[in-house]
Amino acid sequence: MQNGTSKLDGINKIPVPHTPVFNLASWASSLTFADLPSEVVGRTKSFYLDWLASAAAGRNHVSVASMVNLTKTQGPMTGKCEIVGFSDLTTSPIFAALVNGASSHVVEQDDLHNSSMMHPATVVFPAALAVAQRVGAHGKDFITACVVGYEFACRFGERLGKSHYSKFHTTATAGIVGAAAAASYLLHHDAATMLSAVGTAGTQAAGLWQFLLDATHSKQVHTAKAASDGVLSAYLADSGLLGPHEILEGKRGMVATLSSGQDSNPSIVDKDLGYQWSVMGSSFKWHASCRHTHPSVDALLSLMEAEGVKAQDISDIEAHTYKSAIEILSLSEKADTVHQSKFSMGFVLAVAAHRGSAKITDFTEEALFEPELRQFQKRVRMVLDEKIENAFPEKWLGKVVVVTKTGQKFEKEVEVVKGDPGWTLTSEELEAKFLSLADYGKINDTPKLSETIERVWHLEDQENMLGYAF
Amino acid sequence: MQNGTSKLDGINKIPVPHTPVFNLASWASSLTFADLPSEVVGRTKSFYLDWLASAAAGRNHVSVASMVNLTKTQGPMTGKCEIVGFSDLTTSPIFAALVNGASSHVVEQDDLHNSSMMHPATVVFPAALAVAQRVGAHGKDFITACVVGYEFACRFGERLGKSHYSKFHTTATAGIVGAAAAASYLLHHDAATMLSAVGTAGTQAAGLWQFLLDATHSKQVHTAKAASDGVLSAYLADSGLLGPHEILEGKRGMVATLSSGQDSNPSIVDKDLGYQWSVMGSSFKWHASCRHTHPSVDALLSLMEAEGVKAQDISDIEAHTYKSAIEILSLSEKADTVHQSKFSMGFVLAVAAHRGSAKITDFTEEALFEPELRQFQKRVRMVLDEKIENAFPEKWLGKVVVVTKTGQKFEKEVEVVKGDPGWTLTSEELEAKFLSLADYGKINDTPKLSETIERVWHLEDQENMLGYAF
Repeated sequence: MQNGTSKLDGINKIPVPHTPVFNLASWASSLTFADLPSEVVGRTKSFYLDWLASAAAGRNHVSVASMVNLTKTQGPMTGKCEIVGFSDLTTSPIFAALVNGASSHVVEQDDLHNSSMMHPATVVFPAALAVAQRVGAHGKDFITACVVGYEFACRFGERLGKSHYSKFHTTATAGIVGAAAAASYLLHHDAATMLSAVGTAGTQAAGLWQFLLDATHSKQVHTAKAASDGVLSAYLADSGLLGPHEILEGKRGMVATLSSGQDSNPSIVDKDLGYQWSVMGSSFKWHASCRHTHPSVDALLSLMEAEGVKAQDISDIEAHTYKSAIEILSLSEKADTVHQSKFSMGFVLAVAAHRGSAKITDFTEEALFEPELRQFQKRVRMVLDEKIENAFPEKWLGKVVVVTKTGQKFEKEVEVVKGDPGWTLTSEELEAKFLSLADYGKINDTPKLSETIERVWHLEDQENMLGYAF
Repeated sequence: MQNGTSKLDGINKIPVPHTPVFNLASWASSLTFADLPSEVVGRTKSFYLDWLASAAAGRNHVSVASMVNLTKTQGPMTGKCEIVGFSDLTTSPIFAALVNGASSHVVEQDDLHNSSMMHPATVVFPAALAVAQRVGAHGKDFITACVVGYEFACRFGERLGKSHYSKFHTTATAGIVGAAAAASYLLHHDAATMLSAVGTAGTQAAGLWQFLLDATHSKQVHTAKAASDGVLSAYLADSGLLGPHEILEGKRGMVATLSSGQDSNPSIVDKDLGYQWSVMGSSFKWHASCRHTHPSVDALLSLMEAEGVKAQDISDIEAHTYKSAIEILSLSEKADTVHQSKFSMGFVLAVAAHRGSAKITDFTEEALFEPELRQFQKRVRMVLDEKIENAFPEKWLGKVVVVTKTGQKFEKEVEVVKGDPGWTLTSEELEAKFLSLADYGKINDTPKLSETIERVWHLEDQENMLGYAF
């Protein structure tokens, strides 16, 4: 032996236990494109287009500018990895994942996986795209890696559950694990190495809700770092760094430390692998507000149309919802900023009632100063509804009870909102959303955008994953 | 207004509250070298030498190799920032901080700040050195930045307290904040910008103890990422990214989310600024094992010498200690690897009893297979001692009760261990430790090492902070 710590420091003596996470890694590391049902492939492509749209729309945000600046001043200014919306810049995987992870989580239009309460696209796609570009992966492998990333992120999120979500931004904490797994898949890791990548990622899991209280930029920091650090974890594992074997269920792992452990059980992590696909359980966002407001928005719009009620007729609204919604939305209820306004139930319903929609262009600085929106906002109260709470997070139900100025009372409940797995968007709607968000981000090269749509719909035929910077 | 989110998104409307953390940032951002008492300057220089020693000793570890590889393949291969022990490699601040943060936390010889239960040097120095090299800072500014980093790291650690430490690796979670503050100081940030840097750092605070159970490499990942991400947070703040204003005490901040909040009170964060200095409360490590074992090691060695007891005479040892020690050391008690062996009270006392010391060269792969050490290890039990628990973490007391094979019973209590603020190392001992650790890391250029020692003792006269790679 040398004078010093030997390379593996005896760690190879400690056996890797066959936990549900190990089973998931074993399954994932040997998954191939041929194993994927066609609807899984189709839905992954749809989420990729939807993710590109969000990244394009968010590219001008200050959080993105600061990360582009970091890339230019502290990263390599050459490399194979692209940054969406910055066609003159290429870099290494960890920086590309960083910037793309930030930009795709700015405009609140990226997907939401219901039962895990997390946004998988904004962490999984930046990681998978960056590594796919670096290693020259085929479109088929990229798709498969994203499916793997969704499984890890969503299953970890489900296992951590509501008690975790009430304290931590699950998109970041489960997201870093999904990003690591997707990157690990593209690096052709075996199950044990993938377990190291995931373990190193999980011990870095972080992301507090404090930013919601003062509208600062941590939301983008969380997704950027989850994507980038997931990639970093996979590359560290690639060069021999070992992660904890039992990061999820170990005595000092994520469940024991970061959640009550009571919201689910360990078996959820490797249940029905190859039969239940996480990409199939994720929802497209139609409205541009926090996903917790969508059931109430849909219920209100439906009620107003059915009953012929107008915004100015309404004197009081109860938005019946689940506890997690109240916990998160209460933090931003005053809506001092544009971003907070998308997290304020009162303001979002005010916008929906007055505009008839809650689109990205409905949330502006000017809107914050419209007296009728501010007055309407005060008429909205969130109410904890036991039935809705019991169904959450498997179902994100909502109900509104409206009282008009003339004393009429109406109520409307919704079970499925537009964009949910049960009421998904058509390809035409996805394409329209893509073009609208690209326009919002001032990307107006129509032929290039059309060509991108075509390439995404045929992603499994692409020899490589280059050319998505615009 | 533009079509899109405006640059500051209305956040400038939200006033920055004058919390204890804001007071600390105000004080820190206007601190100058002239404000530092000479003993504070002297002690900071000593810790810097001690930190260089740890980084030199740890440079050949697999975790360091994997991060050097990451730097070479994903970072810039040019820059002003050096990596200790790798004189042929320079890069940008976030990569230099990453590698130096890993290497200085390998051999368990870096300092320990008692009342915060964290190791400040391994996170503060890598961050401060990297940024100082990048901006061309004078030795005086480097020293001041390190003092600032210690204040943030240690005060955050104290505030988070024992309940936090039982779940999280405080060196990482408070460390990232200290690293951010040190970097922020060197970037000449005002108080509000430093608050953003610290807020962005705090929302990334992570680091679970799970790695202790299977001896994997997260310990180095935690310090590397804390140092690097602290630097990243300061640079992001520099280009306008806003962090949460109340990351520590906010409703969803670090105290509310990551601790019981009951171990201390908020005033600890800005108490006696300029009078109580955190660098004065940190301890040098003399033994090469987990700091929680040191009181027992010193008590045992002292008892054996005073009573003439030899290792083979001992049939039973009770190591009386505090709860945090039992919680952490229990995770590695089997001592399957060299690293775990330094975290096993039984094994550490076995080594101390047989070797008469617990030096870096006493913990080897061979030692793991010595039957007499393994037999001795089984004779050691940790016992929770109420008096010791009540004094912790302000004082790290220890007591051993030894029963010999002939039935004699001895006990010895220690109040202060070698290296503690009350029994600090002399410059000669620090120099000897430096040379010994450099030798352990196979750095043997004696003139260069002597010259480094001289430069550190005159750090306040150095025009720049270049030249510490060896």
